[in-house]
Amino acid sequence: MGIEADVAHAGAAAAAPKKAWDTRVMFRELMMHDVELREYVLNHVFGEELFKLAPQYGMTVRQERDLTMARWARMRELKVYDNVLAVGVDDPSGRRAAVQKYDCLSECVGLLDHSLEIKTGVHYGLFGSTIARLGSKHQRELYLPKVQTCEMLGCFALTELGHGSNARGIETTATYAPETDSIVLHTPTETAQKYWIGGAAEDACWTTAMAQLYVNGECHGVHAFIVRLRNDTDKQLCPGVWIEDCGHKCGLNGVDNGRIWFDNVHIPRSQMLSGVASIDDSGKYQSAIKNPDQRFAVQLGALSGGRISIAVNSTRNAALALTTAIRYAHSRRAFGPDGAAEVALMHYRSHQQRLLPYLARTYAMSFAVNELKRMWWDNCQLLGTPVSKDVHFVSSLFKALMTWNMRDSMQECRESCGGQGYASINRIGPVKNDRDVMMTFEGDNSVLLQRAGKMVMDDYARTVKSRKRSGCFKWLSEEFDTKVNSPARRTGSEDLSQDEQDLERLLETALHRRLYALLESLAQEVPKLQRELAGDAFEVANMISSDASELGYAFAELLIWQWFRRDVARISNAYPDMARVLQMLSSLYALDTVDRSPSFLRLSCISQAEASVVRHAKRRRCAELAPHSMDLVNSFGIPDHLLGPIAGDWELQNRRSKL
Amino acid sequence: MGIEADVAHAGAAAAAPKKAWDTRVMFRELMMHDVELREYVLNHVFGEELFKLAPQYGMTVRQERDLTMARWARMRELKVYDNVLAVGVDDPSGRRAAVQKYDCLSECVGLLDHSLEIKTGVHYGLFGSTIARLGSKHQRELYLPKVQTCEMLGCFALTELGHGSNARGIETTATYAPETDSIVLHTPTETAQKYWIGGAAEDACWTTAMAQLYVNGECHGVHAFIVRLRNDTDKQLCPGVWIEDCGHKCGLNGVDNGRIWFDNVHIPRSQMLSGVASIDDSGKYQSAIKNPDQRFAVQLGALSGGRISIAVNSTRNAALALTTAIRYAHSRRAFGPDGAAEVALMHYRSHQQRLLPYLARTYAMSFAVNELKRMWWDNCQLLGTPVSKDVHFVSSLFKALMTWNMRDSMQECRESCGGQGYASINRIGPVKNDRDVMMTFEGDNSVLLQRAGKMVMDDYARTVKSRKRSGCFKWLSEEFDTKVNSPARRTGSEDLSQDEQDLERLLETALHRRLYALLESLAQEVPKLQRELAGDAFEVANMISSDASELGYAFAELLIWQWFRRDVARISNAYPDMARVLQMLSSLYALDTVDRSPSFLRLSCISQAEASVVRHAKRRRCAELAPHSMDLVNSFGIPDHLLGPIAGDWELQNRRSKL
Ligand SMILES: Cc1cc2nc3c(=O)[nH]c(=O)nc-3n(C[C@H](O)[C@H](O)[C@H](O)COP(=O)(O)OP(=O)(O)OC[C@H]3O[C@@H](n4cnc5c(N)ncnc54)[C@H](O)[C@@H]3O)c2cc1C
Ligand SMILES: Cc1cc2nc3c(=O)[nH]c(=O)nc-3n(C[C@H](O)[C@H](O)[C@H](O)COP(=O)(O)OP(=O)(O)OC[C@H]3O[C@@H](n4cnc5c(N)ncnc54)[C@H](O)[C@@H]3O)c2cc1C
Repeated sequence: MGIEADVAHAGAAAAAPKKAWDTRVMFRELMMHDVELREYVLNHVFGEELFKLAPQYGMTVRQERDLTMARWARMRELKVYDNVLAVGVDDPSGRRAAVQKYDCLSECVGLLDHSLEIKTGVHYGLFGSTIARLGSKHQRELYLPKVQTCEMLGCFALTELGHGSNARGIETTATYAPETDSIVLHTPTETAQKYWIGGAAEDACWTTAMAQLYVNGECHGVHAFIVRLRNDTDKQLCPGVWIEDCGHKCGLNGVDNGRIWFDNVHIPRSQMLSGVASIDDSGKYQSAIKNPDQRFAVQLGALSGGRISIAVNSTRNAALALTTAIRYAHSRRAFGPDGAAEVALMHYRSHQQRLLPYLARTYAMSFAVNELKRMWWDNCQLLGTPVSKDVHFVSSLFKALMTWNMRDSMQECRESCGGQGYASINRIGPVKNDRDVMMTFEGDNSVLLQRAGKMVMDDYARTVKSRKRSGCFKWLSEEFDTKVNSPARRTGSEDLSQDEQDLERLLETALHRRLYALLESLAQEVPKLQRELAGDAFEVANMISSDASELGYAFAELLIWQWFRRDVARISNAYPDMARVLQMLSSLYALDTVDRSPSFLRLSCISQAEASVVRHAKRRRCAELAPHSMDLVNSFGIPDHLLGPIAGDWELQNRRSKL
Repeated sequence: MGIEADVAHAGAAAAAPKKAWDTRVMFRELMMHDVELREYVLNHVFGEELFKLAPQYGMTVRQERDLTMARWARMRELKVYDNVLAVGVDDPSGRRAAVQKYDCLSECVGLLDHSLEIKTGVHYGLFGSTIARLGSKHQRELYLPKVQTCEMLGCFALTELGHGSNARGIETTATYAPETDSIVLHTPTETAQKYWIGGAAEDACWTTAMAQLYVNGECHGVHAFIVRLRNDTDKQLCPGVWIEDCGHKCGLNGVDNGRIWFDNVHIPRSQMLSGVASIDDSGKYQSAIKNPDQRFAVQLGALSGGRISIAVNSTRNAALALTTAIRYAHSRRAFGPDGAAEVALMHYRSHQQRLLPYLARTYAMSFAVNELKRMWWDNCQLLGTPVSKDVHFVSSLFKALMTWNMRDSMQECRESCGGQGYASINRIGPVKNDRDVMMTFEGDNSVLLQRAGKMVMDDYARTVKSRKRSGCFKWLSEEFDTKVNSPARRTGSEDLSQDEQDLERLLETALHRRLYALLESLAQEVPKLQRELAGDAFEVANMISSDASELGYAFAELLIWQWFRRDVARISNAYPDMARVLQMLSSLYALDTVDRSPSFLRLSCISQAEASVVRHAKRRRCAELAPHSMDLVNSFGIPDHLLGPIAGDWELQNRRSKL
């Protein structure tokens, strides 16, 4: 019994003939850029023996690290990484192409091996970017070619034992010594030891160390310094540098994270990255950016690129797990009607409802993140421009939501494959473990979300005050926006649940209402708290922190939906059949969003009757999408050799004759 | 600034002086039995070099397996495992003591090493129990002493490549051959290969193989057979037995899971476990249990013990992660008011709200599971009694809810420790990975939950019909029970949110209402579906499967609360101060339950106003519990040497001088 038959048997409205659309077209839309390079790397490069997955499970840390380095070396040998740093490229479009290429490679590598993604990401994306963003023209010209060729192998040292999220509180000092015209890097306390520095334990010979700059006794805040850690020849540590391995991790063991102590390490003044701030020849601190908050933000600009690639790779890896679990659900049979053959797992309503909402979310996110990438490239093509507020805001939100979506999708996929989901060879569990850290690094999700929520509040206050959509509100629909401050939208009186055709409208209303209801409740709460807490801003922020997170979440869920729908609309002319199935996914995304959070009902954004409508519609949509789900996962374009046996003919591959 | 000061600063009602109660008394209440044995094993045995945790990270599969076996051997050498199988014990209380002892050891070992827990669990708990439950008196006397001493090292072979959850569909055959008075075990197809059999790949020399019994051409369903797999001396496979390693897993690599093929393996008729069914001397099949469904249920009885120990160990390991994360939250500082010292993470409302609801859930579950254990021991003390329906029902529910609670608690703890949560040495991540399989084995959670939900429906139908509380409804409060079929409880008219003192009442009402609302909606839905689907029972079950799961979940959440509260009431005379803090946890458990699920609002079990009351009360309760949280985790009694550095003085342990 095929899956269509199955679903029809279940009374589902299993319409649409299979393959009314082309999975390759969908792949191109999902990937957006560098499709040929992608296919070359995924199929050709990763087809080589060195990139084979199967032998990799159960490796020692030594083997994992060596393999990661060997793979990277081989890719460089194949010139795959050439020109990812736009060294010497003067035109914006050339620079844009370099960033795109790098992003494409990070995504390819990200499907194969998280360690390789991070190892290369630390070098090009953090070490290289920091120099590109914060270095002077001279420094860029001096260092970047060597970073590009890996002649200078680098890492990025910000976090310390005592300070991670609160990066501004780091304790490492960089003191200008006029006598020698040098800068002295020092670890003044135990909590100031650099911690978790990827690449530092073994391979990196250089680092961009972040430290508090002291000039003439005055502290100017966090700045970046190029520091040599090791000799290139024998990898001996430089005098005054002490490094220790961070030890075994729950995954990502191909990356050699290290702890670094600096014992009064002198570097020439010229090794302070001086594009944004510098010490002049007379020994005075100079910076065009006078505001210390802004200066600090600029110093951490390299992290934005990291956040974006984490967001993208989260959607790709959710897609990886979903491909496996959904393919397996079509071929694995369990139970059935009395006396009849067993049915495929995908036949089960509960199984559809476990997996397909995540498929919808992952599709929505895959499209939405493309918009973020475009914003990012626009930003990157202009050299010397700091990361825009928009990029910072959206990348913070997307990093948090997309890594959590990956986490939850992978876990559901793991469990929905039963025992097979726990076998390393099937690549759900180990990838999940390797990627668990994505919630934490380049900005802890919870911290990012709270901050983004506060930005939404600020932009809302500005919007209300100026009666003009400000900041992030510019992305929201005009129609709802004009309702700002109009109480009508919260009465729940317009009951949209009567006519099924109005479902989209109901969802649109619900998602906007939630956002504005949260905003208004915060707008009431904050002044009250300010009074109660006598204006203690820190405590006010603390008291509303969960609400701020919820607000950030609500904003992001809406934004992802908007951007997904915009893309679907764009596509619908050229590919109407494809757009139809995307439209179903878009609807399921919103239905799932409304169904799973109690806030819609609590805040009167929907009525109870509407909640039931939503729940039923969600289940129906799952049943309708079930027959399309194979094509939808195949459109992610993940080659078979990156998938475990259960994504294919697992019975064949488990034969005794195969041993 | 200490945590009390912190919390007071946040305006919390941080009352209760610290340590108004004794953490050791709490420990005894939580553990319920064999406290001295526990302390001996945890502190003394696990204090030995062989049980040290630190060197274990990053081991190869070979090392992990050898370590597991070495630890088990050492524990046997210390006679720790003596008399866990009640061999030759005739009195019920002696048998009860043996089961209790075994449970205690499983819990101790479960805190140290999941592989050791499973390796011993497979041998004593599955192989041994199957013989004890299904063997004749003679077989018990013959085999169990050898199982007790490990002279017969065994495993339990039920699952096949093609059939896991649907165990009744296994294909391995056991055909009676009258010519030789033997039984022939055979793997007729590729999907019939035994899969995932713990212990089979290397160590076990025996197995209880489950297979379809054919006598005289007739199939009598699944039965258990004692089959030798290997020689004791050289571990060579027996003729006709073929075994292959299942390969690397996402965790639990100290267990050697294997795949087994039987190629017409003859065993004497006497090796069919014949306490429940047998082949008599004339070659005829005999069984006292005529109903094949019942017979099948009895054959799988050994799995109940496994489910219970999984439930218990899930609460213990959630406690392990919470101990680490909460201790760290009291010592880790990040951010703070402008210019002032940084504050401890536990000061942050959002951090409290991330961790403390899980602490409350884990406490509630730790107490509730004790009631299940008591039911189980009552059941075990009578030899030859099949597992009661009550034990089967509650253990299914608790296994599912408690493993999911562990999963979610551990994940939240992992993330709430930031980067440190990802370091293996801190024991959150690796334990999480090792235990991820608990959602799957001994009954997949989703399948268990659906089935338990259907049992609730049946018991409800009986209750309504007989107007007498039947089945699982006997555990629910009389007061609400009498409301069966009374519509009043669903109007939401009695608004309990006005008076804060009535919170408990509100919660009690809400949890009951949800249960009955789900039951009634199913009672209406099912006949409708039966008509629409022309009585297709399989499809009706499929259509309501998610609702059945939700029902099972709702029932279990209520039951856990009831049993927790009953224990708190019991304790309150002797330890009023301790009971007070438990009462706060009980309240938080219920508040969190109501707050996080949209079903309460959707099903009109609470009003919107009440939902806000609940949310605020939940946050307040978290703030109140924050100052108690250290003592509460310390009461779990997990010795320091089983915790990672961040649970202690992590600054000290990270000093450079410590290298
Ligand atoms: C594998 C790995 C690789 C890494 N690679 C690098 C690298 O190459 N270079 C580098 O510089 N760093 C690196 N890091 C460090 C990483 O960026 C930090 O771990 C991260 O920034 C979080 O900091 P933390 O670990 O100190 O957590 P903390 O800041 O201590 O946060 C712990 C928890 O407290 C919560 N919290 C913190 N502040 C607040 C608040 N104000 N309100 C509410 N909750 C709060 C957070 O949500 C989090 O859950 C790496 C980390 C890991 C694990
Ligand atoms: C590490 C490990 C150790 C093990 N040790 C042993 C052992 O020692 N001995 C032994 O006999 N077995 C063992 N097992 C096997 C284990 O018991 C099975 O994996 C488990 O019973 C689930 O079966 P499955 O893997 O075939 O999953 P499946 O039954 O294929 O289930 C896959 C998914 O489908 C869903 N599903 C199944 N049926 C339905 C339905 N009717 N409706 C809706 N959804 C459904 C499930 O929820 C699950 O998510 C072990 C497994 C592992 C991973």
